[in-house]
Amino acid sequence: METLKSYIEQITPSDKAIKNQMEAYIDGLSKPVGSLGKLEEMVTKLASIYGNKPIDLNKKIMVIMCSDNGVCEENISECPQEVTAQVTYNFTKGLTAINRFSAFTNSDIHIVDIGVKSEVIHPLVHNKKILHGTHNMAREAAMTYEEAIRGILVGISTVEELIKEGYNVFGTGEMGIGNTTTSAAVISVLTQNPVQEVVGKGSGARPETLQRKIETIEKAIEHNKPNPEDPIDILAKVGGLDLAGLCGVFLGAAKNKKPVVIDGIISSCAALLAYRLAPLCGDYMFPSHLSKEIGSKIVFEALGIEPYFELNMRLGEGTGCPITFQLMEMATFVLSTMGTFEDAHVDKDNYMNIWK
Amino acid sequence: METLKSYIEQITPSDKAIKNQMEAYIDGLSKPVGSLGKLEEMVTKLASIYGNKPIDLNKKIMVIMCSDNGVCEENISECPQEVTAQVTYNFTKGLTAINRFSAFTNSDIHIVDIGVKSEVIHPLVHNKKILHGTHNMAREAAMTYEEAIRGILVGISTVEELIKEGYNVFGTGEMGIGNTTTSAAVISVLTQNPVQEVVGKGSGARPETLQRKIETIEKAIEHNKPNPEDPIDILAKVGGLDLAGLCGVFLGAAKNKKPVVIDGIISSCAALLAYRLAPLCGDYMFPSHLSKEIGSKIVFEALGIEPYFELNMRLGEGTGCPITFQLMEMATFVLSTMGTFEDAHVDKDNYMNIWK
Repeated sequence: METLKSYIEQITPSDKAIKNQMEAYIDGLSKPVGSLGKLEEMVTKLASIYGNKPIDLNKKIMVIMCSDNGVCEENISECPQEVTAQVTYNFTKGLTAINRFSAFTNSDIHIVDIGVKSEVIHPLVHNKKILHGTHNMAREAAMTYEEAIRGILVGISTVEELIKEGYNVFGTGEMGIGNTTTSAAVISVLTQNPVQEVVGKGSGARPETLQRKIETIEKAIEHNKPNPEDPIDILAKVGGLDLAGLCGVFLGAAKNKKPVVIDGIISSCAALLAYRLAPLCGDYMFPSHLSKEIGSKIVFEALGIEPYFELNMRLGEGTGCPITFQLMEMATFVLSTMGTFEDAHVDKDNYMNIWK
Repeated sequence: METLKSYIEQITPSDKAIKNQMEAYIDGLSKPVGSLGKLEEMVTKLASIYGNKPIDLNKKIMVIMCSDNGVCEENISECPQEVTAQVTYNFTKGLTAINRFSAFTNSDIHIVDIGVKSEVIHPLVHNKKILHGTHNMAREAAMTYEEAIRGILVGISTVEELIKEGYNVFGTGEMGIGNTTTSAAVISVLTQNPVQEVVGKGSGARPETLQRKIETIEKAIEHNKPNPEDPIDILAKVGGLDLAGLCGVFLGAAKNKKPVVIDGIISSCAALLAYRLAPLCGDYMFPSHLSKEIGSKIVFEALGIEPYFELNMRLGEGTGCPITFQLMEMATFVLSTMGTFEDAHVDKDNYMNIWK
């Protein structure tokens, strides 16, 4: 805990003076003030992260945390648990959705086995296994407090290593059958919302499975009594190792002042865990889409972030992140190459600068 | 009218057999069925447009219709009318927002003067001027029925010419001080919603200007009594030449089976005019963002289309379209290069194919 605590204390805010400078610059561009909305906010946020250095989006990487969840014993998914290992292995083949999104945006992929039940032996899968799957949270804590911290530290060290390799921008993906169940449990406790308001069909639960999922989560919370004020206690008792690892990715990116993009319900749940541990993380987080999972809206409200897209996506793997990578590059290019009012020979006072 | 009528009669539906084939193909990809949401719908729609040919998004172009509106006499904008000509000219310099968005996405720009008040003499501005600005709709019809049709035909012939030059994908932009006022008038009549529910602040109206804008639109509708059943009558009496030209772009794209992207409130108003003239146009239209203008939501509902992004943009010029161009390229790349269940050695029956 001390290691994690002292790491979190090193997270500092992004540079607000640069943010103000960038806002003033953008307000001098030849367009109604504020008329590019969230794209302007995105670029001022990026500028404040990079501080005195130019915004650099060249080296992008998706960190994908793979792990299994003991709660699958309760039949909360239509999908057999073996699929976690299969898909983890498939990430190495370049043929999954996130592989193709990443290829299109010239992003790399870093696959971490943080808790897959079986052994996944492949040169491209980084073995940081903490457990061979968590325990069944309906009957006992998913993991110990100490294991949850170790999971977070895996995420942190992953980011630190990737930064040494030159990576500048991070995306957050996952694979783990049962992880919409654990995420809903964590979100319910973190935001104090009833389980049925934050749980969704995941990859495709039948009505009776969804009902079992809700009851299982309620049982897990009732049995384990996670402390709503302690994100790590929640993570340990009703979370998962993918959530722990991704929480660490958000913390590591914030500590190192690198932009990090949120994907769907699991990734946003991990973002909220990090945000509760260290609210300054919010300075470094960027959304992508509003997931089809019903809890997504509640998590983004708790994070104080509005998603950019609504594409009815519910695939996970981090698939929303590369779309935001692309939008970041586009917005930065547009706002850094547009003409100013002076270039445009338009009198700014006459050109619609009334409301922001 | 006969020319336009016979042109519209030549619009045919996109290829639904190909659409079904593409849906079946996508359902065989290694991911939960339907989990890429609107991206899957986008690609099946594109496939049904291209029919037996492969989807080709290489040659993209923004058509930007520039025109002035007589209603500016009523002081419905903070912005002097001369800005229309200034910005039309600035499109040729490569420094406006839409120039930069287009450059980033490797799209071209085609600038049409369909009704700018002053003369805009530049080799890159295509002079198709029908009027030197419309008349003041608060006092008389903005243009005649015949001029409105000529405006639509300008849009159609522009698309036809660009297709001959090899363009495959169209975006719809505009410039014209006062055109959120004309668009709100057209939307109010087309959708039978009260003016104050569809009118926004445009480029930045002060509260008193917004009030004058509402009263002016109400006066224009009351005075001209456009027939809600006749889109051309509405366009002529309370519309603008940019709306007419863009309406023609939507019709021309549909007739020639080319995808065409909607931008903000003015572009979506033109899309709705085209859709009312020829509902089959809907098969060829793609949204981009939900504009900050309050009428935007109502128009998309009337079109039966859900926007992809919510970025609080309200700039116009067509700036939303290149973002959709990019998403189209990404979605097509991802879904045409992903592995199938067979490639992935995952048993589809076990992998979450329950709900769409």
